[in-house]
Amino acid sequence: MHIELKRGSSRSLPQQIYEKLGQRISSGLLLPGARLPSVRELALSLKVSQVTVSKAYAELEKKGRILCIQGKGCFVADIEHEGTGEGGGWQGRYDDYLPRAQLWRNFNESEADYSFHLASLHRELLPLRSIGSTMAALVSEQPELMASYGNFQGDLELREVMRRHLQKRGMALASSGLMITSGSQQGIDLVARTFVGPGDVVYLEDPSYTGAIDVFAGRGAEMIFVPMDREGMRVDILTSLCDERPPKLIYTNPTFQNPSGVTMSIRRRQRLLELARSYRCLIVEDDPFSDLYFRDPPPPSIKSMDRDGHVVYLKSFSKVLAPGCRIACVAAEGDILSRLIAAKSASDLGSPLLTQRAVLPFIADSYERYASGLRIALRERMESAGRLLRQYAPSGVRWTLPEGGLNMWLELPAALRIDKLHTLAEQESISFLPGDVCQAGEGNSRHIRLCYAQMNKARMEQGLKLFLELLSRYMASELPDEMIQ
Amino acid sequence: MHIELKRGSSRSLPQQIYEKLGQRISSGLLLPGARLPSVRELALSLKVSQVTVSKAYAELEKKGRILCIQGKGCFVADIEHEGTGEGGGWQGRYDDYLPRAQLWRNFNESEADYSFHLASLHRELLPLRSIGSTMAALVSEQPELMASYGNFQGDLELREVMRRHLQKRGMALASSGLMITSGSQQGIDLVARTFVGPGDVVYLEDPSYTGAIDVFAGRGAEMIFVPMDREGMRVDILTSLCDERPPKLIYTNPTFQNPSGVTMSIRRRQRLLELARSYRCLIVEDDPFSDLYFRDPPPPSIKSMDRDGHVVYLKSFSKVLAPGCRIACVAAEGDILSRLIAAKSASDLGSPLLTQRAVLPFIADSYERYASGLRIALRERMESAGRLLRQYAPSGVRWTLPEGGLNMWLELPAALRIDKLHTLAEQESISFLPGDVCQAGEGNSRHIRLCYAQMNKARMEQGLKLFLELLSRYMASELPDEMIQ
Repeated sequence: MHIELKRGSSRSLPQQIYEKLGQRISSGLLLPGARLPSVRELALSLKVSQVTVSKAYAELEKKGRILCIQGKGCFVADIEHEGTGEGGGWQGRYDDYLPRAQLWRNFNESEADYSFHLASLHRELLPLRSIGSTMAALVSEQPELMASYGNFQGDLELREVMRRHLQKRGMALASSGLMITSGSQQGIDLVARTFVGPGDVVYLEDPSYTGAIDVFAGRGAEMIFVPMDREGMRVDILTSLCDERPPKLIYTNPTFQNPSGVTMSIRRRQRLLELARSYRCLIVEDDPFSDLYFRDPPPPSIKSMDRDGHVVYLKSFSKVLAPGCRIACVAAEGDILSRLIAAKSASDLGSPLLTQRAVLPFIADSYERYASGLRIALRERMESAGRLLRQYAPSGVRWTLPEGGLNMWLELPAALRIDKLHTLAEQESISFLPGDVCQAGEGNSRHIRLCYAQMNKARMEQGLKLFLELLSRYMASELPDEMIQ
Repeated sequence: MHIELKRGSSRSLPQQIYEKLGQRISSGLLLPGARLPSVRELALSLKVSQVTVSKAYAELEKKGRILCIQGKGCFVADIEHEGTGEGGGWQGRYDDYLPRAQLWRNFNESEADYSFHLASLHRELLPLRSIGSTMAALVSEQPELMASYGNFQGDLELREVMRRHLQKRGMALASSGLMITSGSQQGIDLVARTFVGPGDVVYLEDPSYTGAIDVFAGRGAEMIFVPMDREGMRVDILTSLCDERPPKLIYTNPTFQNPSGVTMSIRRRQRLLELARSYRCLIVEDDPFSDLYFRDPPPPSIKSMDRDGHVVYLKSFSKVLAPGCRIACVAAEGDILSRLIAAKSASDLGSPLLTQRAVLPFIADSYERYASGLRIALRERMESAGRLLRQYAPSGVRWTLPEGGLNMWLELPAALRIDKLHTLAEQESISFLPGDVCQAGEGNSRHIRLCYAQMNKARMEQGLKLFLELLSRYMASELPDEMIQ
């Protein structure tokens, strides 16, 4: 088991070992019953003292995450996690570089009747007929599109269409400055594998997108989470943190942030960019939602203010057009982009050409009208979800209705165990995303994320009512009366 | 610039720095005119002495790869490489973890009239109509396929079809033991990112697939290349190398090897598997070509003999069905597979569902008949290429006609500069793959790889004749008479 340790960090070595083993356990990468390396073995392989490892194990045992049996060793405790692998034998001891996998744990094809866990659009909302008929025409008229590996950077025509799309949104770029990726997830991954290595400092919002945390963890980065307020990431706090630990990269999702829904103010955007310039580092601006505003358009993207290539901008078309087609684009400049294209070639030899061409006419000709209809439909859902919350949410639960995007971020009373609520909801075939997968730490979040767009409207309403009733019963049974009032 | 150095390696530190800078230069990651870090800067960042860096720079300068100007610094020399990025400014100095990118350099959409460089099938040979009509039916009947993220592991129905396909080839696996990837390139990448880290020892055949070398280099692995003979990898040599440097992973392409065309004997396959078992390490068996035999079927795959999950088997359907669809599968067991699926989720949230379903009926019902037709067509091409070689190849050029697969591996006289030949061929719009991108070292290969399937037959023949005439002229002008005869 490879564990990336940072000497001289503000977190002690036992704490780091505790956290990283905890992440593997809660990702299901270490399964219940799996035997941990002995204190001696782990100390040797990490080049730390046995006392350090013992401290980490003691803390994990205290928290009920592992069980140590005199003379036999330490084992992952059998709490609420189930898993698929064997964990034992030589394979279980074959070292890996995979410290966290919350995407895998939380988003692998849910069977829930009421799905709130995934930030995605129900198929009724998507322009599938239109994209499908383009695809059908293409395969009959240009079957050779399926024969070619295409260009690692992505189809030139699609890049030109995306260039015009971004230009309308205030970003003056060249189509040679864009690359097509298999969803924005791949964009994040390519930036990380190219520019982030062990011990590099990556700043993120607290909370942040769990898929980005998985990726940076996989690179052995030192992730530092920056608090947010109503104007988004606290750039003042970030600035003083950077004094101590200069940034290699800053990851932000400034518009209708996933998961919190908060939008970064224009002033903060400017200051963030100034900070990146003074530290000569990259900002990764992940922007899946900016077209999904309910009232006013959000502030301009950070990329639109970028003059020196400090921003790698990720635009997902996957979420809003056809997730199964996996189409997104990365905008970056010069030497940064060339290296990302080189990294893309080694990861998959380029994205499928056919799906790139299949979404092209829709983005070119129909997207703007579609987006304005989508905004109305999503706003209706969000408002309907808001009404249900006001009507059925037990007191003690807090939320702010978002100004755009797909998610609601609910705060539950501190004393409530969200892992138990998650299990109860699963039993009633209701899924949601527990907040602590959006943070680096373990089990301290009071939040949950609900997506109101994943089902059709009637089912979403039915499911939300059921969930809020379940939540009321659970709070009534778990919390002392005075906390519920 | 991040350079992974291995202390205590058989290669000295100056040598390692020389090689790794050389790889970046020949990949086009460091462009002509780019300024290298000063000796002092690089020594500091690599934690080595300035003497060490100076030695590496001196060697690079001696080989004409960089140019050092007193008081100004060292710059990449302007030899035959051109590039796309700027290289300068803050971006050029933004550290990356991308030491090599020969895929990007050699396979990014060639414009050549006569393309021999890419191991792929001409569209006339591919079943595009059949896959296309499935795709057209799917998008009209089940547009929801474009809406879903699907399962990270890949579509269950397709996995079941692939299970049956592999069962017919002697591999008894469960569909739960398979994962769908975006081509085998992604399979190699997922194994590497999950199980290979800095300094881990990876054994490969000499020569090997350049895309695998890119990936392992990107992980900072210590790659050791094992010589081959007519029975494939010299497992006896590998065994004694392992005494010194135990393997983390062995990458092999045992059947109609890319690029050499050699097939590993059954005895060697068995011994290789025994070796992996005794070292408790993984074998990555990359198998794109085993169905493309010209006379007798090749020996059974290593995976078919694997009882303890030591082999990660990569089967590409991409190459033989529709490269633009990017469909391949990985077969692995237990804990190894779970971790690969977790890694897949973080790289791209799963492969597009629609293309998975589009290739499914063809693999299930028509593949075997198609493959037997393809074998005949490829054999015809190979034989025709063989005739042209006998007729037009200048003496001094050597080759063995392959028993299967897509490539011919030509050996040229030692004194010939292949980089110059490459440039000359490009000027006549003929592309081939220089052998040294299939090795770790720089510029020592006497080989080139030609694919006889990338164009239609008539064009291939025309191009090959032109190329061999060019080669004759080049050899006549470059070599002393007594070497040509």
